[in-house]
Amino acid sequence: MATDATQTEPPEAYTALLDEIKRYNAVESATEVLSWDQQVMMPEGGTPARSTQLSTLSSISHDLLVDEDIGRYLEELDDASLTPEQQAVVREIRREYVRAARVPRDLIEEISTATTEALGAWESAREHDAFEEFAPHLERLVELKRQYAEHIDPDADPYAVLFAEYEPCLSLSKTADILDELQETLVPLIEDIRAADADLATDAFEGTFDTDSQESLSREVLATLGYDFDRGRLDTSTHPFTSGNQFDARITTRFDESDPLGAITSTIHEFGHAYYTLGLPDDAFGTPLGSHRDLSVHESQSRLWENHVGRSAAFWELLLPKLQEAFPQTSELSAREAYEAANQVHDENLIRVEADELTYHLHIIVRFRIERELIGGDLAVDDVPDRWNRLYEEYLGITPPSDALGCLQDIHWSHGNFGYFPTYSLGSVMAAQLSAAADRELDDLDGDIRGGDFDALGEWLRTNIHQHGRRYETDALVEHATGEPLSADAFTEYVTEKYSALYDL
Amino acid sequence: MATDATQTEPPEAYTALLDEIKRYNAVESATEVLSWDQQVMMPEGGTPARSTQLSTLSSISHDLLVDEDIGRYLEELDDASLTPEQQAVVREIRREYVRAARVPRDLIEEISTATTEALGAWESAREHDAFEEFAPHLERLVELKRQYAEHIDPDADPYAVLFAEYEPCLSLSKTADILDELQETLVPLIEDIRAADADLATDAFEGTFDTDSQESLSREVLATLGYDFDRGRLDTSTHPFTSGNQFDARITTRFDESDPLGAITSTIHEFGHAYYTLGLPDDAFGTPLGSHRDLSVHESQSRLWENHVGRSAAFWELLLPKLQEAFPQTSELSAREAYEAANQVHDENLIRVEADELTYHLHIIVRFRIERELIGGDLAVDDVPDRWNRLYEEYLGITPPSDALGCLQDIHWSHGNFGYFPTYSLGSVMAAQLSAAADRELDDLDGDIRGGDFDALGEWLRTNIHQHGRRYETDALVEHATGEPLSADAFTEYVTEKYSALYDL
Repeated sequence: MATDATQTEPPEAYTALLDEIKRYNAVESATEVLSWDQQVMMPEGGTPARSTQLSTLSSISHDLLVDEDIGRYLEELDDASLTPEQQAVVREIRREYVRAARVPRDLIEEISTATTEALGAWESAREHDAFEEFAPHLERLVELKRQYAEHIDPDADPYAVLFAEYEPCLSLSKTADILDELQETLVPLIEDIRAADADLATDAFEGTFDTDSQESLSREVLATLGYDFDRGRLDTSTHPFTSGNQFDARITTRFDESDPLGAITSTIHEFGHAYYTLGLPDDAFGTPLGSHRDLSVHESQSRLWENHVGRSAAFWELLLPKLQEAFPQTSELSAREAYEAANQVHDENLIRVEADELTYHLHIIVRFRIERELIGGDLAVDDVPDRWNRLYEEYLGITPPSDALGCLQDIHWSHGNFGYFPTYSLGSVMAAQLSAAADRELDDLDGDIRGGDFDALGEWLRTNIHQHGRRYETDALVEHATGEPLSADAFTEYVTEKYSALYDL
Repeated sequence: MATDATQTEPPEAYTALLDEIKRYNAVESATEVLSWDQQVMMPEGGTPARSTQLSTLSSISHDLLVDEDIGRYLEELDDASLTPEQQAVVREIRREYVRAARVPRDLIEEISTATTEALGAWESAREHDAFEEFAPHLERLVELKRQYAEHIDPDADPYAVLFAEYEPCLSLSKTADILDELQETLVPLIEDIRAADADLATDAFEGTFDTDSQESLSREVLATLGYDFDRGRLDTSTHPFTSGNQFDARITTRFDESDPLGAITSTIHEFGHAYYTLGLPDDAFGTPLGSHRDLSVHESQSRLWENHVGRSAAFWELLLPKLQEAFPQTSELSAREAYEAANQVHDENLIRVEADELTYHLHIIVRFRIERELIGGDLAVDDVPDRWNRLYEEYLGITPPSDALGCLQDIHWSHGNFGYFPTYSLGSVMAAQLSAAADRELDDLDGDIRGGDFDALGEWLRTNIHQHGRRYETDALVEHATGEPLSADAFTEYVTEKYSALYDL
């Protein structure tokens, strides 16, 4: 029977499915509030109660997702006549349901226990610079995550299955190609930069910058970019992060007296995440159309604001007077010097989270290669430190003096998150492509930034990315916004041009 | 078969029951975090998402409590051989389960919708001083709550059934007797006070007191009383409250430049609540033995600290130097004057939450009479304002000039909370009885307070009240602690003695 789906009520199974998924997502978003509170507000002693609350909600939420009703509704909707939007909703719920339903509950609990134990061991191993303390836990997590992947798809490359947890709409082979391209561009570019011996204003932010003024400046920057404080907050936490939904997207940052640039860039980065979240449609809250696309898309939003706005020359012209008002010691600084300081490529940096816009991706590529080899069975856990150090030498020309500053620096593997790292680089690549498209389509993006007018850029992102939620898969979303599927071209062009000019190559 | 229950493992059904109830309580305590966040941290725009989260968790938590497994375990445990502690656990779970299981889900949802609507109508009615806006909502809530009570026990007085929601272990008739006694003591005592025309230092706290100093002083008071900031926080909210569990019990207060006494007493009041919560046993978290007894017991803890510590002459001797350091304008004040100001009986106060230690209970008794008549069908909703004003005239000698300052002042009825008010007075009565017992048993409570040493009092409360959770029912708990079941004797003695001395009667 041919019906015009746009003219009719959705099938009953669709409405019922939506109700179930809203319930599931309500628990998920409640969990996020508890987790925000834990990192930002909770007194230290609260841990035992919070752990119980979180593990109970996690088991309830899992039960809600794999509920047999959801399976039945999805089956009923197999041949239903649906609008394109409804099809997208069903596609997204089905993907999530299938993954969750295939993994046995016991394994999920085993992984949960193993990660809790691994986290403690990782903290201790890092403190003592003793990789051997962490190794058995890493071994166990690799094994459990392989099993996990096998349950989801016994015929697929297990690392690809794990990667799809974070990036279900982009293939691993495409991702690997993009990372190869980055490496090909960045390794020689960084070599050239080091050889150039240019005289950048690297000491522009030396000295002490009081944290109250840093906070005021961060709030002013957020207000200027268009952050809606009626739907958000700014707080501090050990690791900056963004949390929430379209009604309430909260940012954290951190303030370090010796590093005012760190607070500014991390605040802008988190603004990008929150601005995306706040742009998801209100009326689709709790459904795929009101939820963010995958990690690369989220990271594209944070990177676009952090790098293409916050590290632009125009932005530092805008910020200079505010900066000088907050910190009188910068009264002699020029916008150009501030811009140079914000874009300095570090020679000796070993730490990913402190890396500049170029070396950052080499840090990622090292992790990508290693975790892929680990999960694929091509690298033994005991050989990780050595492999790590060799790759750092090869790609970055530096050798970590310790595992604490080397392969123990990131928390991700102790969470069992294999396949997460590449999404950071994909985000930067996507940010460059989106930024280039916005620049083409908007009258004068550079002038807007210089003038502190972010309406047009905000509107462009709202229209092309945010409002769609998960309506489109990633490549389609990027193509919809930029005319082309995701590729590394815009990024390599952007960095080559920007850094050639900066370092006079 | 006679077994020694203390020597054996608990029956399987008991362990299974405990697991289920922990799950239920984990959701309840997660909900409390969300509710705290809503009142203290959430940006205004977050309401739609938060409402969805809360209503979903509420329905999940209800489902967990009325789960048929719980019913089956309870049945299996009917004739089981249990230790006294296990018996108490089963008794408490059974009581909660039976109440919840008897009320149809539809009715709960109808009440939830009705209260949401009533809340909005009440806010508007109070703003416009228009009782008629609220009346139809009150009518509906009275009717729904009558139905609610009938489901729980069709043969009982519906008001008694509603009262038992907050106070399951104290009978309504005993409560009514206690309130009658309060009235008999307080009405003539207040008349005497008014007639005495004594010259108390009522203007001791006139002027402006900056709120930052008020906050520092509140924190100092909390630390002196023994609040553990590693298991709690102090924040501000419109209405002060305490929230949390034995690992994380948070206090809010409010600061008013013209009323430093208000912040001090409300902070001490909330400390009492939090100190009780923090004294519940860690290892019984999520079970009845790790949960607080009913509202009167909770309120007894807040009132004990607020009135018997915080409004004592000894306390003001302790506080005076801290007060004078925080507020140089009080440098001429004596401890006696501060004590008098903190204990002033107000002539014309219409508002319950601003009432002194004596008139407070007459405010409560008015509400108790009215809500009992309403639920009993002896008073029409339209007659509430008139009845309210007449009772105020009769008991307090004042007539509210408006319903906004009269029967619309409290939020409780718009929440459908009929039977809640009397628990406030029961709390004060219990506080007096506990305080008198502690005073008898401790070496020198007054000296301890004067010296800022609260260890002995804290330990006495921990031992006699907090550590028991719900092990004992209320009267047994009070008798355990004081040698007698709850009565108004200690309270009437306390107020008569204290206020006769203060007002030179």
